[in-house]
Amino acid sequence: MGWQADETTRRLVRKPLQRRALRPDDVAVRVDYCGVCHTDLHAVRDHRGGADTPLVPGHEFTGTVTELGRDVTRFSVGDPVAVGNIVDSCGVCAMCRAGQENFCHEFPTLTYGGTDRHDGSTTLGGYSREYVVRDRFVYQLPAGLDPAATAPLLCAGITVWEPLRSLGVGPGTRVAVAGLGGLGHLAVKLAVALGAETSVISRSKDKAADASRLGAHDLVISTDATHMAAAQNRFDVLIDTISAPHDLGPYLRLVAMDGTLSHLGYLGPVTVQTTDLLVGRKKLSSAGSGGRPATEAMLEFCAVHDITADVEVLPSAQVNNALDRLARNDVRYRFVLDMSDLP
Amino acid sequence: MGWQADETTRRLVRKPLQRRALRPDDVAVRVDYCGVCHTDLHAVRDHRGGADTPLVPGHEFTGTVTELGRDVTRFSVGDPVAVGNIVDSCGVCAMCRAGQENFCHEFPTLTYGGTDRHDGSTTLGGYSREYVVRDRFVYQLPAGLDPAATAPLLCAGITVWEPLRSLGVGPGTRVAVAGLGGLGHLAVKLAVALGAETSVISRSKDKAADASRLGAHDLVISTDATHMAAAQNRFDVLIDTISAPHDLGPYLRLVAMDGTLSHLGYLGPVTVQTTDLLVGRKKLSSAGSGGRPATEAMLEFCAVHDITADVEVLPSAQVNNALDRLARNDVRYRFVLDMSDLP
Repeated sequence: MGWQADETTRRLVRKPLQRRALRPDDVAVRVDYCGVCHTDLHAVRDHRGGADTPLVPGHEFTGTVTELGRDVTRFSVGDPVAVGNIVDSCGVCAMCRAGQENFCHEFPTLTYGGTDRHDGSTTLGGYSREYVVRDRFVYQLPAGLDPAATAPLLCAGITVWEPLRSLGVGPGTRVAVAGLGGLGHLAVKLAVALGAETSVISRSKDKAADASRLGAHDLVISTDATHMAAAQNRFDVLIDTISAPHDLGPYLRLVAMDGTLSHLGYLGPVTVQTTDLLVGRKKLSSAGSGGRPATEAMLEFCAVHDITADVEVLPSAQVNNALDRLARNDVRYRFVLDMSDLP
Repeated sequence: MGWQADETTRRLVRKPLQRRALRPDDVAVRVDYCGVCHTDLHAVRDHRGGADTPLVPGHEFTGTVTELGRDVTRFSVGDPVAVGNIVDSCGVCAMCRAGQENFCHEFPTLTYGGTDRHDGSTTLGGYSREYVVRDRFVYQLPAGLDPAATAPLLCAGITVWEPLRSLGVGPGTRVAVAGLGGLGHLAVKLAVALGAETSVISRSKDKAADASRLGAHDLVISTDATHMAAAQNRFDVLIDTISAPHDLGPYLRLVAMDGTLSHLGYLGPVTVQTTDLLVGRKKLSSAGSGGRPATEAMLEFCAVHDITADVEVLPSAQVNNALDRLARNDVRYRFVLDMSDLP
């Protein structure tokens, strides 16, 4: 049973789902908690439908192993596990061999809306009570972390972890996080735990208390010209998690010499003035999800530093309400659906 | 005497120029050779004129010291010297202190079309027989390098040297140079001398022999889809010197995991698909000119490796012809004006 998009109403409705019979390397997972990602919102709103492309969102979930394919040795029935936004990849290309399955040359199989590499079916996501997934893409849920609050780490967490790590963030790095939402609040927690001097860039002072509680050392108000001028050339790494299209210029100007703006919140074309890159030899990058080794490392780091998302847990029957509120940014900071109301 | 833009005809005409009386830290230079940069072409074509904003182009020249301000100790009359596209900076900001005068927080004084920091006059460039410049921005011309062929190193050379060095190009790096013009041919020579495996990306096979002669190891034909597909994810650093606005997507897709596309040839807005950055964790940067220490290091490197530009030397009276031919890309690879036809 799961929550499937109705293409007429653009709402999610409860429907029975058929999961595949287990292959030798499959794991069946009872989904306990599934995070609500911005991508889910776009997917439902943009869904064109058709019987052969059903949409069940959800690509950050935690749950419990219920059954194992005959070749699976890494898990036992009853194990607490987690699954992110990739459920398969070719396994043999240079990227897969390098542990960057998210960049698989044959394109990784996405957790929902993807195409299964073996039977060609459309993958159905974690807004459901059961999921069947290749064992390589199942992660042990670290002991001590709350399963509901951990679910968002599997997409939002790894998405911010990747640029923080690949850009070498650590003690001495000056990090700014623009936008304090699902991605941003985790970027702050992780950057602080990595030892970086961490600032939040927000449109108003409203989030000052939250920024401070999350561990940020400073707040820069993006609508305050004096504030922005004083922060020019200040940050080695700027993690831009703003989900609406916006001018990158003012943010690039906050980046220090040889620093990088990593752009996460929005997928689409972005326009930059080359002079904003040139002056100060700055770089623009983007990120989204990560490979298996990085996901494992992120979960381990979060277990050590007791980091999970700040979540509002709702019964899965409230999914449409959650999406509506997410569209209004009315969430601090991630909705998680409790799937126990599904049979 | 120099070549000044006539705002009606958009041609350069010979006119007497007044240079300032030497300040204590000034050096007077007799200009012997001045390179013709794409920037000069744009400046002349876009010149709106007015008596108080005269335009004399030219910002890469070599010459001979003719007179010294009373505090100048680094030079003697008769010294062969070189001047690039910056002639002054504040000297006290963090960028100047770091030797990145090109990023001076008060904006560096450009060699032409800039505003002198002391008397507020508009700077007049090297398409002239004499130049007066603050001693800090005068470089010794290395012994053994041809003065005419060295002139373009002061703008084109440093512009490609900066990204090659800041991106750590050396033995083992796979470098591609897109566009084989004034910038591109120097990027190839420098990348090869730095020990990188160096490829040229060009629209046709026409430049294969030149690419090979310059030391390139391979040529990728950008109009050949098979060629481009085979080169995907192949280069750690891609130096894009194409001067016309163009789609960066096909070039970003040639960049390897964690690699960088450095965009040099065109100043203005560029649009990229964030997925072209995201997939492979690639970076976009830009570059133009460099600071004093980098310029000195570049000249020293060129002296050691006997690198100069491939030039076509013309009497300065041919300057309009040179600009017309440059606009048609009819140059291999840099025009240099011989100023000895001016009194």
